Amino acid sequence: MIIILKPGASARNRDDIVESLKARGFTLHVSDGATQSVIGIIGIEPAQKVELADQYEALPFVEKCVPVSKPYKLVDRQFQPGGSTVEIGGVKIGGGAPPVMMAGPCTVETPEQIIESAIAVKKAGAQILRGGAYKPSTSPYSFHGHGVEGLKMLGAARDETGLPVITEVMDVRDVEVCCEWADCLQIGARNAQNYTLLREVGLAKKPVMLKRGMSMRYDEWLQAAEYIASQGNYNILLCERGIRTFETYTRNTFDINAIPAMKELSHLPIVADPSHGTGKASLVAPVTLASLVAGADAAIVEVHPNPAKALKDGAQSLTPAQFESLMAGWRALMP
Amino acid sequence: MIIILKPGASARNRDDIVESLKARGFTLHVSDGATQSVIGIIGIEPAQKVELADQYEALPFVEKCVPVSKPYKLVDRQFQPGGSTVEIGGVKIGGGAPPVMMAGPCTVETPEQIIESAIAVKKAGAQILRGGAYKPSTSPYSFHGHGVEGLKMLGAARDETGLPVITEVMDVRDVEVCCEWADCLQIGARNAQNYTLLREVGLAKKPVMLKRGMSMRYDEWLQAAEYIASQGNYNILLCERGIRTFETYTRNTFDINAIPAMKELSHLPIVADPSHGTGKASLVAPVTLASLVAGADAAIVEVHPNPAKALKDGAQSLTPAQFESLMAGWRALMP
Amino acid sequence: MIIILKPGASARNRDDIVESLKARGFTLHVSDGATQSVIGIIGIEPAQKVELADQYEALPFVEKCVPVSKPYKLVDRQFQPGGSTVEIGGVKIGGGAPPVMMAGPCTVETPEQIIESAIAVKKAGAQILRGGAYKPSTSPYSFHGHGVEGLKMLGAARDETGLPVITEVMDVRDVEVCCEWADCLQIGARNAQNYTLLREVGLAKKPVMLKRGMSMRYDEWLQAAEYIASQGNYNILLCERGIRTFETYTRNTFDINAIPAMKELSHLPIVADPSHGTGKASLVAPVTLASLVAGADAAIVEVHPNPAKALKDGAQSLTPAQFESLMAGWRALMP
Amino acid sequence: MIIILKPGASARNRDDIVESLKARGFTLHVSDGATQSVIGIIGIEPAQKVELADQYEALPFVEKCVPVSKPYKLVDRQFQPGGSTVEIGGVKIGGGAPPVMMAGPCTVETPEQIIESAIAVKKAGAQILRGGAYKPSTSPYSFHGHGVEGLKMLGAARDETGLPVITEVMDVRDVEVCCEWADCLQIGARNAQNYTLLREVGLAKKPVMLKRGMSMRYDEWLQAAEYIASQGNYNILLCERGIRTFETYTRNTFDINAIPAMKELSHLPIVADPSHGTGKASLVAPVTLASLVAGADAAIVEVHPNPAKALKDGAQSLTPAQFESLMAGWRALMP
Repeated sequence: MIIILKPGASARNRDDIVESLKARGFTLHVSDGATQSVIGIIGIEPAQKVELADQYEALPFVEKCVPVSKPYKLVDRQFQPGGSTVEIGGVKIGGGAPPVMMAGPCTVETPEQIIESAIAVKKAGAQILRGGAYKPSTSPYSFHGHGVEGLKMLGAARDETGLPVITEVMDVRDVEVCCEWADCLQIGARNAQNYTLLREVGLAKKPVMLKRGMSMRYDEWLQAAEYIASQGNYNILLCERGIRTFETYTRNTFDINAIPAMKELSHLPIVADPSHGTGKASLVAPVTLASLVAGADAAIVEVHPNPAKALKDGAQSLTPAQFESLMAGWRALMP
Repeated sequence: MIIILKPGASARNRDDIVESLKARGFTLHVSDGATQSVIGIIGIEPAQKVELADQYEALPFVEKCVPVSKPYKLVDRQFQPGGSTVEIGGVKIGGGAPPVMMAGPCTVETPEQIIESAIAVKKAGAQILRGGAYKPSTSPYSFHGHGVEGLKMLGAARDETGLPVITEVMDVRDVEVCCEWADCLQIGARNAQNYTLLREVGLAKKPVMLKRGMSMRYDEWLQAAEYIASQGNYNILLCERGIRTFETYTRNTFDINAIPAMKELSHLPIVADPSHGTGKASLVAPVTLASLVAGADAAIVEVHPNPAKALKDGAQSLTPAQFESLMAGWRALMP
Repeated sequence: MIIILKPGASARNRDDIVESLKARGFTLHVSDGATQSVIGIIGIEPAQKVELADQYEALPFVEKCVPVSKPYKLVDRQFQPGGSTVEIGGVKIGGGAPPVMMAGPCTVETPEQIIESAIAVKKAGAQILRGGAYKPSTSPYSFHGHGVEGLKMLGAARDETGLPVITEVMDVRDVEVCCEWADCLQIGARNAQNYTLLREVGLAKKPVMLKRGMSMRYDEWLQAAEYIASQGNYNILLCERGIRTFETYTRNTFDINAIPAMKELSHLPIVADPSHGTGKASLVAPVTLASLVAGADAAIVEVHPNPAKALKDGAQSLTPAQFESLMAGWRALMP
Repeated sequence: MIIILKPGASARNRDDIVESLKARGFTLHVSDGATQSVIGIIGIEPAQKVELADQYEALPFVEKCVPVSKPYKLVDRQFQPGGSTVEIGGVKIGGGAPPVMMAGPCTVETPEQIIESAIAVKKAGAQILRGGAYKPSTSPYSFHGHGVEGLKMLGAARDETGLPVITEVMDVRDVEVCCEWADCLQIGARNAQNYTLLREVGLAKKPVMLKRGMSMRYDEWLQAAEYIASQGNYNILLCERGIRTFETYTRNTFDINAIPAMKELSHLPIVADPSHGTGKASLVAPVTLASLVAGADAAIVEVHPNPAKALKDGAQSLTPAQFESLMAGWRALMP
């Protein structure tokens, strides 16, 4: 970490900081510039960095503290330079495996709807089935999913089609039952900094797909993943689902930069979610294909037998026919 | 709700929608404009609105669905036009009561630190003590608070000074113990859309201060409050703590507009948190006073006996002397 | 346009508005909902809409005014449903023509540098040469380009290689000389709402590439294009170059959604600028290819013979070798 | 400036950079950390910093370049620690002078309207008259102001009331005529990075009020001011007018933090514009008063004799009666 003093700081100020850092056992490099002094601290641990930065920035003659190394370790690219592979019910994602398509309805509505969806997306080429049993909704009066009954419907769809399933968990008390029925747990954007939930899925034995929070920077997203990894669960997928910006035509702004950026920063596989990233069915196919070409290891797309009757997210769901057409484009671009 | 059809939609398209809406039992007003038809739906409930909008926007000839009435009811200004009052350990906030100052350290560190802080902030004029026993941290390796031991230290500080206490709860499993020791529960910005936690504190018998999420629009914030109210707990404070923007000099951008806007939209009292809203001790006092003048019912400010040794948020904490000076300005502006 | 009254508005309020609108000659549809009245205005011109919305929203009993039709006409997709084609020095862009690559250095530095660049990018497959003679810089002390001398160097590079050239114009007084030397004028992001400049290039006889402003919504961007079109110049390219968000790892957030969205909203060709959209050379290739697959009609990429010696934007410039490798990927994906 | 190398950089990489920097004549401090080397450059000029950062970040083994000192000088607080005073037609702003209210209609519409407005705002206590003769409008079809005729109407209102006038200039070719009629030039948010215009008003002999661009960071705003100062015109007012965020209830998010932050960073006086900062008449008074308490040297507020007939910005304009009530609150808070 580097501490930059204010232009007006005295030699006395500088020496005070230097002494206090030495007393804490750090090795230092001090450099007096033309207008400002700079103190470099060597060998500081990520765990100490945030605390130290906060404390030293509190001093009136400190301008700012600049971190040198990254605040995460286990999910850092350097930890596994070749990229890691996550296996979901036998399907491999990342580490050079062919890109995987996950698809299905936003919400599990009825046994018929989820089985019909599963058969349709499998036929078109999807390898993993998505569907929500627990649904976060902005309004307390909206439908919140069928809960355990929804999980069982998902299980039946898996039995019928052989597709492994991914489903969202929102409550620490539901982690166990979700692990029982699902092959991969999803942490939604609204819970991306719900640290108690992150720790709990870190203790689970299932792969976890961590969606990016609506206004999370890359480093914060990776630190959220580090919460999961730090509990011993390394089977983590990162999922870019769009960020909140000033644009109102689309529901979110899909951050395509995040796809190659995550490849630079982390070894974890990256999944694109253009359904939430655009919020408009008409934009889903081009953005899905763009993600694939940008290097995504997988994509997750909402497909509903009849979007105009969907209980949630109808506006961004593809019909089975639209999904088939997307998959034709997908196969044509497969690396 | 109003459904606007695309310019190219046919009369047949329009009639199909009209029939489907009538079949659902709605009263309609249809208006054919110069280029586009518009269908108004009368008497629709908030609970149905989100679903319907999603379903009709999924139709290829629908341009957009515009809500007319608001998606929340219990926290709407119209529900209690005079404004509501929330009482925390005997201290009244809102409804015309004199503005209240809450203060204390970010984190409860030691019994001595929290008692020293409590005595200092009380002496300067604060009426409620803040302090974190459970702390959300971006990094899994940072200090996360002393948990129940921290709650007990807070309890001891209350016994010593008579100040009621407010503290953050992050885990549904901790709601009960937090209710035991605290006079007001805080929901942090990162959990502002953790709906399972919102429902749980809605069932608790304690007042709740709901911080605005980092990128929450006003209507989403009020719907989060509606989650709490819909469980029967109407003792809710809204807390503006800054939003995430592109500006990097400050930690967040304190949204001063939100203070009078919340007064228009809701009857709930509004609390300003300039410590997180600025992230810089030097900006806290002017922004606190600005909030007071803009109509805030209370403010919450971080004060630490020695910010340069604080375990968290040192850069935005005031010293007791700085806080005394802020309180002098506060009293001078008291309405 | 639709005017939504506040829940508390009286019948008298509603009638006042209705009368005032009738007096202005509009045809109306009035609908009294369960809680609020809604007034639809039929046949209103875009030009009147903004004014009317402003005036009626000023009334204390009006909640909001919702536009139905779009605020632009000449650049609307409906105006030319098949998409328009813009020709730059013989190279066709849009309207189904094969995607075009524009490349070259950020800034024209020396006659040698621009000719070396032009030869390199042509060899790799670029069809248009970019290079700045007038450069906007955040700092007044940075290099601002060689001006007319730079234009002449560009002209020499065109003579040498046959590549048409595109260059930025920042000052209304330079439009004429830029038209003399360049085949296409560029309006930069910082001038995207410089309406006097937009009108001036609207009067010019050259194609114009209009970059999206840093925080422009789609409708504002298209209205900026409408400024140009309204002066009679329909040869307009839209250029997505990333928007400003809270993310700091990248210089901007490239909005991939904008590519297919612009195809829905407008007939104008769309160009991707991943150099500014990412700000990092390592991310340029994947985002360029993603844009192509998402439907971009062209891309513009910064290439410099020696980025580590570039006077501007070195961090986002590709070396000729990196550009060749990008072009290999580009050709492989060509539709 | 500090250059941080990537963890994988070799000693050879480090030595190459060191040599190249020494060859350019810089004094260096090199520090090898536990994982990464850091190179400090001493005595670098602001003018070189941007270029160097760009060039060195282009090297594959450089992680990032961190500036130590600020990229502006003439507008830096250190340049005039006591704060500067700007005089507009005899009215002093900044440097400890009592806060000044500027008011008037968005647009000069008729001789009667501007004179009626001027008399009303003067009576209520305003000291400077605002009014637009040249108006930026998102739509090319909106009213763009009366131009020179509007300037003359402003001049007549000044003659009538004695109030100095401030008006926006958008075109470099209009600077001269605006200087003739106005006492202070305004640069609007959309032109805040129109560098040719900034330079031109820097050469003018009139005070300039520089509005913050919609998505400008503080350092960029101050560099825009530095453009003006670098031409010899030090009579600059900064104007916070709200930034663009994801919030849609308000037109912009007024950044109250900017008021005290600008006082820390710059010696220039700061003006608050709550009319644009909120976009809603009902929020203007509380936010104006908040700005005053936060330390603003002046405020600028839109007042129209009849907002419901205003040609622009009716929704955010105060009636003369509302403005009088605001001024009563203003006087009560005057420091």
